[in-house]
Amino acid sequence: MNPVSTQNIEYFASVGIEIAQSSDKLDKQFNADLFDKHFGDSQVALFPNSTEQISKILSYCNENRIGVVTQGGNSGVAGGAIAHRGEVLLNLRNMNKVRDIDPVVGVLVAESGCILEDLDNHVQQFGYIMPVDLGARKKCMLGGNVSTNAGGLRYLRYGSMHGNVLGIEAVLPDGRILDTLFTLKKDASGYDIKQLFIGAEGTLGVVTAVSISLAPIPKASQVVVLGLSSFSQIQRAFVLARQDLGEIVSAFEFWEKRCNEIVVKFEGYKSPLNNPHEFYVLVETRGSCAHHDEEKMDTFLKTIRKEDLIEESKTFNEPKAVEDVWLFRSQMANAHNKSGCMYVYDFSLPSKYQFDLLIATKSHMTLLNLYGFEGSPVKDITIFGHIGDQNIHLQVIARSFESTVEQALEPWIYEWVGSHNGSVAAEHGLGAHKGKFLKYSKSPTVISTMKSIKQLLDPHGIMNPGKHVSCA
Amino acid sequence: MNPVSTQNIEYFASVGIEIAQSSDKLDKQFNADLFDKHFGDSQVALFPNSTEQISKILSYCNENRIGVVTQGGNSGVAGGAIAHRGEVLLNLRNMNKVRDIDPVVGVLVAESGCILEDLDNHVQQFGYIMPVDLGARKKCMLGGNVSTNAGGLRYLRYGSMHGNVLGIEAVLPDGRILDTLFTLKKDASGYDIKQLFIGAEGTLGVVTAVSISLAPIPKASQVVVLGLSSFSQIQRAFVLARQDLGEIVSAFEFWEKRCNEIVVKFEGYKSPLNNPHEFYVLVETRGSCAHHDEEKMDTFLKTIRKEDLIEESKTFNEPKAVEDVWLFRSQMANAHNKSGCMYVYDFSLPSKYQFDLLIATKSHMTLLNLYGFEGSPVKDITIFGHIGDQNIHLQVIARSFESTVEQALEPWIYEWVGSHNGSVAAEHGLGAHKGKFLKYSKSPTVISTMKSIKQLLDPHGIMNPGKHVSCA
Repeated sequence: MNPVSTQNIEYFASVGIEIAQSSDKLDKQFNADLFDKHFGDSQVALFPNSTEQISKILSYCNENRIGVVTQGGNSGVAGGAIAHRGEVLLNLRNMNKVRDIDPVVGVLVAESGCILEDLDNHVQQFGYIMPVDLGARKKCMLGGNVSTNAGGLRYLRYGSMHGNVLGIEAVLPDGRILDTLFTLKKDASGYDIKQLFIGAEGTLGVVTAVSISLAPIPKASQVVVLGLSSFSQIQRAFVLARQDLGEIVSAFEFWEKRCNEIVVKFEGYKSPLNNPHEFYVLVETRGSCAHHDEEKMDTFLKTIRKEDLIEESKTFNEPKAVEDVWLFRSQMANAHNKSGCMYVYDFSLPSKYQFDLLIATKSHMTLLNLYGFEGSPVKDITIFGHIGDQNIHLQVIARSFESTVEQALEPWIYEWVGSHNGSVAAEHGLGAHKGKFLKYSKSPTVISTMKSIKQLLDPHGIMNPGKHVSCA
Repeated sequence: MNPVSTQNIEYFASVGIEIAQSSDKLDKQFNADLFDKHFGDSQVALFPNSTEQISKILSYCNENRIGVVTQGGNSGVAGGAIAHRGEVLLNLRNMNKVRDIDPVVGVLVAESGCILEDLDNHVQQFGYIMPVDLGARKKCMLGGNVSTNAGGLRYLRYGSMHGNVLGIEAVLPDGRILDTLFTLKKDASGYDIKQLFIGAEGTLGVVTAVSISLAPIPKASQVVVLGLSSFSQIQRAFVLARQDLGEIVSAFEFWEKRCNEIVVKFEGYKSPLNNPHEFYVLVETRGSCAHHDEEKMDTFLKTIRKEDLIEESKTFNEPKAVEDVWLFRSQMANAHNKSGCMYVYDFSLPSKYQFDLLIATKSHMTLLNLYGFEGSPVKDITIFGHIGDQNIHLQVIARSFESTVEQALEPWIYEWVGSHNGSVAAEHGLGAHKGKFLKYSKSPTVISTMKSIKQLLDPHGIMNPGKHVSCA
């Protein structure tokens, strides 16, 4: 790739694009990711305000072999939206219009730069909510949600981006506009091209607008937090929740004792339960009739008490209390990040192996003399996550970022996950770092097919170079 | 493509593949589609029993430039699984093993030749149902369901194949096995390659096995049939159903008076309501608690009576009665097919245009002097469909198949749908006929991207030649 020259910047200015530049490097908001783990050195950010401007930028960069890193809310944690090689940053914050909403059927068409929480608030006045919710809701943008195939907190109930996104508008690297902004649910007319852009992390083009199916605003919602003493009890409780709560269970999240302590200590929040427990579970329901939902929750609580699965339970009804509990849960990663130098992993794993991963990691690091004693380089190894989606987050908190810790963890941990039929990236994406570990959960034929598609759509490799599948 | 020679057949036999051949052409079960509209002339069908055998067949055909048409239950209606040019038929009926089921999480891994109804029965013993159901359930196979991106009767509740399929195993045209049989829900590790095969109708390779997320078996189900006098009342009733029935509404189907008469006359079934109505709606709920669901349905029925939306309603509770009502609904296309020579169209359309399509088609055919008088070439023009999915089926029943009728209908009807923001193929696929009409609902950039992907994965064009996007 060619570096960005003064002449290039003059061109961008001449076609009316807002530009930020610095002789050194741009502000941290553009050059660091959410957990300050990945840093870039970009000196030029472009803020286009239309699909046509993006088309001009890409066709120009394609002709001139200039690398382009697309950035939304820059709330990723895998360095996927950071320019590491002096590429041009394409920041979509000015592409923030709601283009259309169908209030009868519940379909939103909005530009990629719309902030998730703003969209959620906007669609609520029509009786809907967004089908996706993340801890980063105040910062993350719709285009990034699609491009990272965001999972998050509502996945159990509303499913994946692959099911909810009805269409996208994207600009291909050569500047052509790919318009698949379909607003209807069923379409069997040819290959579903938009699916390739869901999770592509800006390596195939720039997603400029999205058409997405909304979920009706739930008339009733309740949250219960449980205290349990073993991981197998969590799994049993989940099976029973699906039986007793049926179609209304919308979240089934867990965290362990140490996670609870870390949030209390580093965020200053109050523990949701009165007593300490080995494990905590947050169960949420969202339904259309409050008294039906309460009756179902009562049945569930009776069932798990009868099976002696829980030590404590607490029901949260007041909106403020519910919000506080969710804040406690969703600030968990941030709290860990404040507690030390965090290596964060995000895996899909069959339930039966999830706790084993924690045990195996602790043993592995102990054997290498990096964990488990007073003043050891690694202070904490914890897991929490979305039991309902078989998606867990593992944190290794070191006293400082040092290569011995990282080398002990990787590739060992990816290999462990691959050999237990998991995914090395469940919902955080591959970003700058994980492409080279893809081989632990994807076969050579799958990886080579991915690479062929990258080559087909971005033959000069200008889109997010060196990231994602390019480094596989 | 080269014709299939004796030498080729000797090769297939030498690697142990079951073969059916005929000097003239094979039996109609292999050479005609469900409605006997598309006929093929294939003389050779192969019945492989393993992925390895399919790999051998494809790499051999790829080297020898022999066209391959993959066939599942052959219950399609768009001619997509028929060999029109003397290709080899690859029939998957021997690939019918259930490979794995996770009874805790509800994930099935099964081969493509498993019949949908058999799978539904099989998973019920573990407390699950398949997330897809079609009128052709006794015949259609899992691989075909995926390859046609089947929609059907449970779509409103359980969503699309794009959301439910977790992974596939496919053989690429060059014989390489693409294994993405992932069994977990969340994966953000690279492009979601399997999505391309969902709806590819056998043009990119052969889907040999599928990993699919199951739905819990509903503890309670109820069906109500409504009689209404206008299409706008149906739409209003749908909005109210979503409000009052919330998360338990699982189907909202409609048909018009003439459809009801045709099923009564040609299938010999009894009308589900006592009196004739301009429109009929079938509302189904599936929930986890019978008395909650009945209470919600009561509320819904009170609401629509209060708004004076319905003329009659009838509730069906007994399993046999429910089955009969669904049979009435699901045999609608067959009944039309028995009533004359059927041109069948399958569109997605915004609700506000759905009835207009019927009116416009009737006017158009009347103006051309083909419909609307005693003995006119076209006897009936009807619509029915899935209101909840904005997917309608339009039937034009002629006295005989003749070019004047077809020429009057096409491309006029596809153009009408395209100009009203619809899809020319909602759930029946493009098959042999509709690729050339793709331009009415997909932009040139989208079509050329589809074609590039076809060229990338099947450079010699051996997979289902002349179908789907190849004829776009």
